[in-house]
Amino acid sequence: MKCGRCKAPAVIEVRRHNAGYCRECFLRHCGEQVKRAIEHFDMLERNDRVLVAVSGGKDSLGLWQILRELGYEADGLYLGLGIGDYSDSSGTYVREFANARGWTLHEVDLSSEYGFDIEEGSRAAKRAPCSACGLSKRHIFNEAAINNGYNALATGHNLDDEAAVLFGNVLRWETEFLGRQHPVLPAAPGFVRKVKPLIRLSEREMAAYCVLTGIDYIVEECPMAAGNRHLGYKTALNDIEERSPGSKAAFVFGFLERGHDRFMSEVDDAREELRPCTICAAPTPGDVCAFCRMRARAVGEPIGVRSTS
Amino acid sequence: MKCGRCKAPAVIEVRRHNAGYCRECFLRHCGEQVKRAIEHFDMLERNDRVLVAVSGGKDSLGLWQILRELGYEADGLYLGLGIGDYSDSSGTYVREFANARGWTLHEVDLSSEYGFDIEEGSRAAKRAPCSACGLSKRHIFNEAAINNGYNALATGHNLDDEAAVLFGNVLRWETEFLGRQHPVLPAAPGFVRKVKPLIRLSEREMAAYCVLTGIDYIVEECPMAAGNRHLGYKTALNDIEERSPGSKAAFVFGFLERGHDRFMSEVDDAREELRPCTICAAPTPGDVCAFCRMRARAVGEPIGVRSTS
Repeated sequence: MKCGRCKAPAVIEVRRHNAGYCRECFLRHCGEQVKRAIEHFDMLERNDRVLVAVSGGKDSLGLWQILRELGYEADGLYLGLGIGDYSDSSGTYVREFANARGWTLHEVDLSSEYGFDIEEGSRAAKRAPCSACGLSKRHIFNEAAINNGYNALATGHNLDDEAAVLFGNVLRWETEFLGRQHPVLPAAPGFVRKVKPLIRLSEREMAAYCVLTGIDYIVEECPMAAGNRHLGYKTALNDIEERSPGSKAAFVFGFLERGHDRFMSEVDDAREELRPCTICAAPTPGDVCAFCRMRARAVGEPIGVRSTS
Repeated sequence: MKCGRCKAPAVIEVRRHNAGYCRECFLRHCGEQVKRAIEHFDMLERNDRVLVAVSGGKDSLGLWQILRELGYEADGLYLGLGIGDYSDSSGTYVREFANARGWTLHEVDLSSEYGFDIEEGSRAAKRAPCSACGLSKRHIFNEAAINNGYNALATGHNLDDEAAVLFGNVLRWETEFLGRQHPVLPAAPGFVRKVKPLIRLSEREMAAYCVLTGIDYIVEECPMAAGNRHLGYKTALNDIEERSPGSKAAFVFGFLERGHDRFMSEVDDAREELRPCTICAAPTPGDVCAFCRMRARAVGEPIGVRSTS
């Protein structure tokens, strides 16, 4: 197979685009897809300060590099979740990546700064580990971006991730989540703008991007995620994509074009009810936000009182 | 396992309901689910004349019997599609079922009455066989119900069917199809009311219903359907249901409660543009309806002229 652009020998085929690419053209393709996503959805302005949430995996490290290559002022944020060897190892990948390039990396450690890890939070809040983790990430990423003066928080969600989340939301017709599922969530009081510039690239393309540019990333999946629903949805969608390449992209972009806006009213209604958390000031529909409630339970504090130590 | 209702030994477990049933209680359960669907969605009035489209399979024959047992005046309609041995055999099952009970069965033969079979229609209209078949069924079922003075046409679509169709429509965000996907489509000029009373029963429950009541049905799937997308969607949803029983019902009923109405505007818009087909008078957005166009191509007539022989 030859590169569809320059006719050199291809190193990768992307069936969704019915095309093969040589190394150079594939890397250009990845940059172009990110650029196109950013422009199409008005994700970033040229002089925005962007904070990239990096986990040490292929998606977030690849995203950070692509954003830098496209000329954005992008720094990294690593959140230590305290998931044993997995967290130790992922932190090492992130630090080595940032150090080798001399790029700014912010670090937050859940245990030492908030007093609990994901397993403790999960148990205390009676949430599945992935749910406790998602809640912590959303809260801390947003807080870190605001406190450090960034204009936007970028996460490495790729096309496969978005398709699987969309599938889960559609299977249960989670209308409020459907209204919130968008590659750009604009800034609002207490919320930094959130963007997903990898929405046009698949998991496989991101792995190839890292391999071809020599990015060393953590290959293992998080041990807590094994067997969760999300991975089941990915498997189901992979089978469909295998039979009909392009199905995932049609699912996600068809939703964004023809589905998403029909679910916006729920989001607007929910947003109107938000007020600052009495502990951390993050927007919440109650008095104390879900993250602060989980933290209080995990550290054994009465809810509503944060120790000042 | 014991029957959850009467404590007799159970003959079947329905994981979605987290319940086992003995023969008697299971048959009652099936009748109740149909009754509940009919009442919840206002499908039928007590004195409606109902035409049941019967294929010889478990769903349609089971449906016909349940509707009769619930006291509805329900007759059968069998459409001979000309799919070789499969059609011969399915017709025999239907006739024997109706004869043994002395129930009225209408028969339409695609080849002898319209001059083509599914394979010829499929080739002529450049549609997949399942698409040519669906088009023919929708057209002829509606025509037969109107011509014979029925108030409603009932089809044997079960929960698994509806979930798979919904999945396909959502994967491509077919907004007009989503607006039309409902267990009851009210009558409109040129359209008989269409109802799907099995929407609360799964494929497996219908098979058990037939086995337990001694209904002899055609077990083979249509040979033309092998490997089609619809079956791929069923497999994907079966995997999800296996892990989380009740997922399919949550998907379909969640859509009907919180999704469907958001897609109604497309249907209303499309309906406003309909006018009678110049050949058969069925409502169509063009001059000649899709069925008459397929028929004309299949029999080699110029489109717009129907031979009067």
